[in-house]
Amino acid sequence: MYNNNEGKFMDTLSRTSSYVRDVRKQNPLVVCLTNSVAQSFNANALLAVGALPIMTSAVEEIDELVAAADSLYINIGTANQPQSILMFEAVRCAARHSKPWVLDPVGVGVSSFRDNLTRKLIAIDCPAVIRCNVSEILHICGVPAPQHGVDAVSYGSGYLWCDDVQRYARNHRSAVAVSGPADYICYENRTDWVNGGSPLMTKVTGMGCTASAIVAACVAVFPNPFDAAYAGMCIMAEAGSRAADKAQGPASLQHHFLDELSQL
Amino acid sequence: MYNNNEGKFMDTLSRTSSYVRDVRKQNPLVVCLTNSVAQSFNANALLAVGALPIMTSAVEEIDELVAAADSLYINIGTANQPQSILMFEAVRCAARHSKPWVLDPVGVGVSSFRDNLTRKLIAIDCPAVIRCNVSEILHICGVPAPQHGVDAVSYGSGYLWCDDVQRYARNHRSAVAVSGPADYICYENRTDWVNGGSPLMTKVTGMGCTASAIVAACVAVFPNPFDAAYAGMCIMAEAGSRAADKAQGPASLQHHFLDELSQL
Amino acid sequence: MYNNNEGKFMDTLSRTSSYVRDVRKQNPLVVCLTNSVAQSFNANALLAVGALPIMTSAVEEIDELVAAADSLYINIGTANQPQSILMFEAVRCAARHSKPWVLDPVGVGVSSFRDNLTRKLIAIDCPAVIRCNVSEILHICGVPAPQHGVDAVSYGSGYLWCDDVQRYARNHRSAVAVSGPADYICYENRTDWVNGGSPLMTKVTGMGCTASAIVAACVAVFPNPFDAAYAGMCIMAEAGSRAADKAQGPASLQHHFLDELSQL
Repeated sequence: MYNNNEGKFMDTLSRTSSYVRDVRKQNPLVVCLTNSVAQSFNANALLAVGALPIMTSAVEEIDELVAAADSLYINIGTANQPQSILMFEAVRCAARHSKPWVLDPVGVGVSSFRDNLTRKLIAIDCPAVIRCNVSEILHICGVPAPQHGVDAVSYGSGYLWCDDVQRYARNHRSAVAVSGPADYICYENRTDWVNGGSPLMTKVTGMGCTASAIVAACVAVFPNPFDAAYAGMCIMAEAGSRAADKAQGPASLQHHFLDELSQL
Repeated sequence: MYNNNEGKFMDTLSRTSSYVRDVRKQNPLVVCLTNSVAQSFNANALLAVGALPIMTSAVEEIDELVAAADSLYINIGTANQPQSILMFEAVRCAARHSKPWVLDPVGVGVSSFRDNLTRKLIAIDCPAVIRCNVSEILHICGVPAPQHGVDAVSYGSGYLWCDDVQRYARNHRSAVAVSGPADYICYENRTDWVNGGSPLMTKVTGMGCTASAIVAACVAVFPNPFDAAYAGMCIMAEAGSRAADKAQGPASLQHHFLDELSQL
Repeated sequence: MYNNNEGKFMDTLSRTSSYVRDVRKQNPLVVCLTNSVAQSFNANALLAVGALPIMTSAVEEIDELVAAADSLYINIGTANQPQSILMFEAVRCAARHSKPWVLDPVGVGVSSFRDNLTRKLIAIDCPAVIRCNVSEILHICGVPAPQHGVDAVSYGSGYLWCDDVQRYARNHRSAVAVSGPADYICYENRTDWVNGGSPLMTKVTGMGCTASAIVAACVAVFPNPFDAAYAGMCIMAEAGSRAADKAQGPASLQHHFLDELSQL
């Protein structure tokens, strides 16, 4: 087994409540350069969890915003050339001001543009956490991975890919949080799985991006990247599970997800 | 009468279920260049119907995306100069890779910019389907049509405009799907009407754009443009009717619409 | 006391209904240059209140759109250099065509870019109404104001800031509507407060932007800027109060807000 099971059966609910409490105590300001599809959902999720989102598309103000912020969130889902320049500058600012940042490499592997953008962003400064799906992280690891659009392709139950992801995390200074039926987190020598959530979450656009946004709030609050990624994915899983119990479809899932998130 | 009534009283519900089943079997990947207001709604509707949306704003990746996709959806609702260059290139890619595409000419007639953009897009390659409102298609046909913003103006009950639309569809290789109290579909010598939906649907921003997105999923699944347009509009009408039965206003309509769409 | 209490205990509900009736009678067309996070919410709120939103990002069409419209709404929340050029041109068109416009200076004070953009927009032509939070208007007034992101910082119960805002409104030809636990409106020698709403409204992204959008619909209907700002804030407060009674969290608040708005 590649996973460290120690936390698997702990009282994740009480842990999750304590994570949310910590976020709410600090109200971290998160600069978000996220895709245009998920902006509103990402912002509402950050508000619900107790963070303060600020969005921008202007390179002229990125240094001031990152300097004032507690963390930076970059999502390449609908990036183009001007936005990639903004993203490069944002990561440089994060490095200069010692602010942690989170990368969501949406659709890396579907185009050279996304591959190059992802590689360059990581080369400027290691993100505290990379949050993505299995196809995406394998592509970053240089392992051939089937892909169909921006959504994860099933990898069966073998979890053989964990080796590759763990090696990547050990060789870089980034934690990796891989979303899936169970979420896999690794950083340095630590690995763990987060259970919970619901398959219906894959039917809501921007749900993965929202996980990344929540993790970006957490890297501002929990200094260790593993802890931040783990906390963020627990919050997602708990709110997702609760919402799925009440949902009749994807719209009501998203609706209940935000309401539950605000009540955790 | 301009319409072909043969299908009017058939069991549209069972037909609609079968259309959705066909879409879900194929899970078409739809590249969406849609307006910034409707992106999230469009993406959620595509996921609900069983398609996989992918959005982009980067001309650098459009060829790879269209090559990998099953269809292309272009909506000019908030297009500007850089985006129009992306749209032209996308349609060229669709032609080169023989992928069908759907056009939603939002607000054509309200500005020369939208007129020119629409004319140039159609000149590059005929869309499989043009999905729009009456004002918009009449403007494309060169018939003077009153317009007030991007919303349809009522044309009474005469349906005299159908002649013009039918002539346009006959002279071009595009099907036309005109949204209204009843939706009018025509292609070559075939015409039909789709009943259902709800007047409340006009109070939800991006509902028309979502119809176009659903039709874009259908052109990937049904080879004949008439069939694709008809299937898409039936899916919209059925989900809209069901949602309207449960809705208390526009937000709950949109909410139920997506949930119903996922359950068709 | 800085406020004029005369209207405070009037039957605001029946007044609000009459404001909405007036908006619905005219169906004003509102050109919206709003931030990418709030676009969909803003458009749905305008539709719910009986206005017709039209969004654009193309400077090529802004003159035709503003000429055809009844008012203009500018929100700088995610503006960048190209969009600021569009905004300058839009305000010039509004001045040329004598169309009233509303400014939401989101986050003015958090960056020089936003400060310069706001100053230049106001210099081109005075907005009919500036709708913002306390930090933002104090920054515009040149009064040092604490700021953390784009959200308002609490100013206690002293309301000492009203003096500064009133002086600004007297010296310019703009009404000011300041959102807060109670909303403060002033123009020339008139001032008033609007009560209602709910603290939960601050947990929905784009709620303030939506207030500005509603005010933009009202400036098209009520010629006096004070009356327009007052009507818009009453509509927001009433729909917000009703929605809060039914909401379990921020998503259900937004949902009920739009439904209630459509039923006012």
